[in-house]
Amino acid sequence: MNKNKKALAILMRARMRPNFNDPAKLSLFPLSSNPKDNQFAGNAMQPASDRGNRMANDLGNTESAFEVVRESMHAAMSMNKTEVLDDVLNNFSEGYFSLSHENRRKLLLVLAREYDLNRAQVRELIKQYLGLELPSGEKAKVSGYEEEGLFSSFYRIERNLRHALQPVYEVLFERLNTHPGGLRFLSILRADILSILAEENFVSLRALDSYLKGKLSTWLSPAALELHQITWDDPASLLEKIVAYEAVHPISNLLDLKRRLGVGRRCFGYLHPAIPGEPLIFIEVALLKNVAQTIQEVLWDSPPITENEATCALFYSISSTQPGLSGINLGKFLIKRVITLVKREMPHISTFATLSPIPGFMQWILSKLASQTKFSEADMSQKPAEGCSSTFWENLLRPEEEKTLLSLPKDVATGKDGMEVMFNLLTSTDYKWTKSPELLSVLKPPLMRLCARYLLQEKKRGKALDSVANFHLQNGAMIERLNWMADRSEKGLSQSAGIMVNYVYRLEHIEEYAHSYFSTGDIHASCDLRHSVEP
Amino acid sequence: MNKNKKALAILMRARMRPNFNDPAKLSLFPLSSNPKDNQFAGNAMQPASDRGNRMANDLGNTESAFEVVRESMHAAMSMNKTEVLDDVLNNFSEGYFSLSHENRRKLLLVLAREYDLNRAQVRELIKQYLGLELPSGEKAKVSGYEEEGLFSSFYRIERNLRHALQPVYEVLFERLNTHPGGLRFLSILRADILSILAEENFVSLRALDSYLKGKLSTWLSPAALELHQITWDDPASLLEKIVAYEAVHPISNLLDLKRRLGVGRRCFGYLHPAIPGEPLIFIEVALLKNVAQTIQEVLWDSPPITENEATCALFYSISSTQPGLSGINLGKFLIKRVITLVKREMPHISTFATLSPIPGFMQWILSKLASQTKFSEADMSQKPAEGCSSTFWENLLRPEEEKTLLSLPKDVATGKDGMEVMFNLLTSTDYKWTKSPELLSVLKPPLMRLCARYLLQEKKRGKALDSVANFHLQNGAMIERLNWMADRSEKGLSQSAGIMVNYVYRLEHIEEYAHSYFSTGDIHASCDLRHSVEP
Repeated sequence: MNKNKKALAILMRARMRPNFNDPAKLSLFPLSSNPKDNQFAGNAMQPASDRGNRMANDLGNTESAFEVVRESMHAAMSMNKTEVLDDVLNNFSEGYFSLSHENRRKLLLVLAREYDLNRAQVRELIKQYLGLELPSGEKAKVSGYEEEGLFSSFYRIERNLRHALQPVYEVLFERLNTHPGGLRFLSILRADILSILAEENFVSLRALDSYLKGKLSTWLSPAALELHQITWDDPASLLEKIVAYEAVHPISNLLDLKRRLGVGRRCFGYLHPAIPGEPLIFIEVALLKNVAQTIQEVLWDSPPITENEATCALFYSISSTQPGLSGINLGKFLIKRVITLVKREMPHISTFATLSPIPGFMQWILSKLASQTKFSEADMSQKPAEGCSSTFWENLLRPEEEKTLLSLPKDVATGKDGMEVMFNLLTSTDYKWTKSPELLSVLKPPLMRLCARYLLQEKKRGKALDSVANFHLQNGAMIERLNWMADRSEKGLSQSAGIMVNYVYRLEHIEEYAHSYFSTGDIHASCDLRHSVEP
Repeated sequence: MNKNKKALAILMRARMRPNFNDPAKLSLFPLSSNPKDNQFAGNAMQPASDRGNRMANDLGNTESAFEVVRESMHAAMSMNKTEVLDDVLNNFSEGYFSLSHENRRKLLLVLAREYDLNRAQVRELIKQYLGLELPSGEKAKVSGYEEEGLFSSFYRIERNLRHALQPVYEVLFERLNTHPGGLRFLSILRADILSILAEENFVSLRALDSYLKGKLSTWLSPAALELHQITWDDPASLLEKIVAYEAVHPISNLLDLKRRLGVGRRCFGYLHPAIPGEPLIFIEVALLKNVAQTIQEVLWDSPPITENEATCALFYSISSTQPGLSGINLGKFLIKRVITLVKREMPHISTFATLSPIPGFMQWILSKLASQTKFSEADMSQKPAEGCSSTFWENLLRPEEEKTLLSLPKDVATGKDGMEVMFNLLTSTDYKWTKSPELLSVLKPPLMRLCARYLLQEKKRGKALDSVANFHLQNGAMIERLNWMADRSEKGLSQSAGIMVNYVYRLEHIEEYAHSYFSTGDIHASCDLRHSVEP
């Protein structure tokens, strides 16, 4: 494998991001990405693939191209299983990759609608089933040897019904799964489906998606996933993927990549035998003396401490490489297994924590501020007395925060109330507020407090609204600490005003916390954080 | 890995077969084996495990032991998915292993009967479904955007119905599949189920078996299987498995094993990441100048030819290690992939053939001879004229064969007709007939002819009656040649009167032959063989 190093170095000197302008390469990527669903701790999934796709469009945008692929898709399902399937499946997947966005969409709708169930057959079986009399009345279960025979018609029709309820496209999925490269192709197919569904809701395509997702979950059973420690000795083709898919803190140069695989660092990925040389998800770990408060410490602590001085393993980046596996929680098992592995190798590590982005905070706070400002405009006349909260209008700010914001000089910030001032400051160009020590100190208290509220209290269907929070909480973590100005990158500022959060995995509580979050939505957090959001 | 060699040598000097007397070890094996279904080219699956089980019985034969395991089984299905499942699943599998045959049987029946479907729920959904009106009449498919909405109730109830039709034990299977060691455990569970079903037919347990078989097929997708060349550098723990599971030509000593992995030999196995260090199936290959006619040539051609002189790759043994994976054709993909691999490494190899046992021949011919002899006794008075075949009675022998058999001295063989003489000779103790050159020459013509008929013409449900023939034919092989006295071992003589067969895989015809065998049952055979069975 070492011979790959030189190749890698040459490769990386040339460019640090894969080139999506090459239409031959680009065909291996989905139409576009749906980063919202596929990020655990960041976004950026196959950037610029849209640009590339526009180039592919010219080749695969014709009606005849569509028909050819449609026929190969039909053949892939209708052929007898011992016929030369490999060629047919290859034709289909290659043909699919050559299609334009519009033709892919058309094809997927054909698949969802025309290769659906045989509903007439389902009805027929259902009628037969209703004609059967339940031998043991209420219970409807075999309760002894003499009853075995009475139930044989039930078992038979149930099996047939189960079969009839499988859509025709089940065959395509199963065949692709056993075909070399097929699982990878299915993952791309699903990424396309998700991006179509994000634009428009097709009931038929949604049904197909939910079916395919179920299949993928079964095939990607953690039992079939291999935990691999990624090192500098790995093939360049694999390391290139790490560079391309690192979603949280982009890898900027060769030195950066080497550091992330070097002393005081670990990188682990899940590999599936059907998708060789490409981790489905990977996690980057830093071995530190204390839980880091800023990402700069983690990325640039030079030189790193010696490993036997470390007491903390910090997960600072988790990236999923397959948008098509969205909703299939591979990370859960990954974190658990990595903790076990690190603990075994280095028993002196006692703290397992993350330094995580808060991808939804700015969006949440800006829309809150904007809507409250609107309310206050509309209801200016009947604005409720301070401290009295109406159902709709709420002052997000505490009196002292309001006061400080309103006392800022007018050339710095304007607004009729504190919330409008805050909104205007946060949306100023180039994050001007982050360059003024005065503005930083004014904004810090309300931002930190509201960020804690966002993480601890804002829910969607009983789960944390923030996707990364939801990810770690369902894995059994607790929210430990917020860190001010922890990520000053463009992305960090735009996502979360530069705030980052430490989640902590306490080995003895992982299962308990995961369970209580799952069943009641309870979020465990440190005392400090809980106090900060008290009224 | 080399450090394992010495350990292996020590290990193998001690004993060449795993010791099943150790109750701690034995628990990892199924109740008993069902070799008929699990052999491709032989039998012998985990010998003596019954003996060991009798020892385990004392520990796990009580009612209280049964109740404990039953409870852990229930917990494994009923617990919330984020609760501490690992312990529960471990308890259940360990508890199961400790149970006696009788208690395992009881438990599996409980699982099949009481963790079946919720039939009331199925009926409820079915009634809802019948209440829906099909929007587009006959076709019953979404045919355009405006219809998407009309079908949403269909998709919803279909999804719910699909879910309701899953038996409760589905949960147990899925959870075990994602649990370390769970897939191995499920394979043992199924081996037990098959051995129970071989004794007695329980409709409920058969339904469970067919469900579990479907699940296992999906999980063991060839895409997840890794083709591994097994060499002398592999860990002793893996090589020990090869020794234990070699089903066709038992490995007699260390030298024998080393030869089978040495010059002029290859051994390939399929490994699954969830069952590490244990190939699910493996195949042994000899590189030869010509297609071998006797197994002795293959096992004892000392020294072997240099590899670049070889023109033939002979598959002389295929063994499946998991009785619980019976009916799941792993071998098909294995043979295809091994051929591709060998061809790539050694382009001078032009013939891919097998030297295979014919496990069902003796059983077939003896029962034929016995039943015809009975017929002739019963119908002595109205015995049909020679050459005229009644529906029931048939002289298996040709006139000249009949004559030679009847002309044997009376102290050697007796019988009122040729078939009875033949039956008596073949069933004589210690295969006496094989020690007499005269008897060998008398028996050879009818045995070779009838063996060809058995392989080429005897069918069961449209497929070859012989299990090994069926295996190779469905993989696309043809029957090339029968070999007289090709396996003089006790097993070879008792299975097939010492006859072995060469199947040949012609690369350019594999798919075509597999397809015609699959769809019409056509068996491809060499001209010589086809002529030999002509009337």
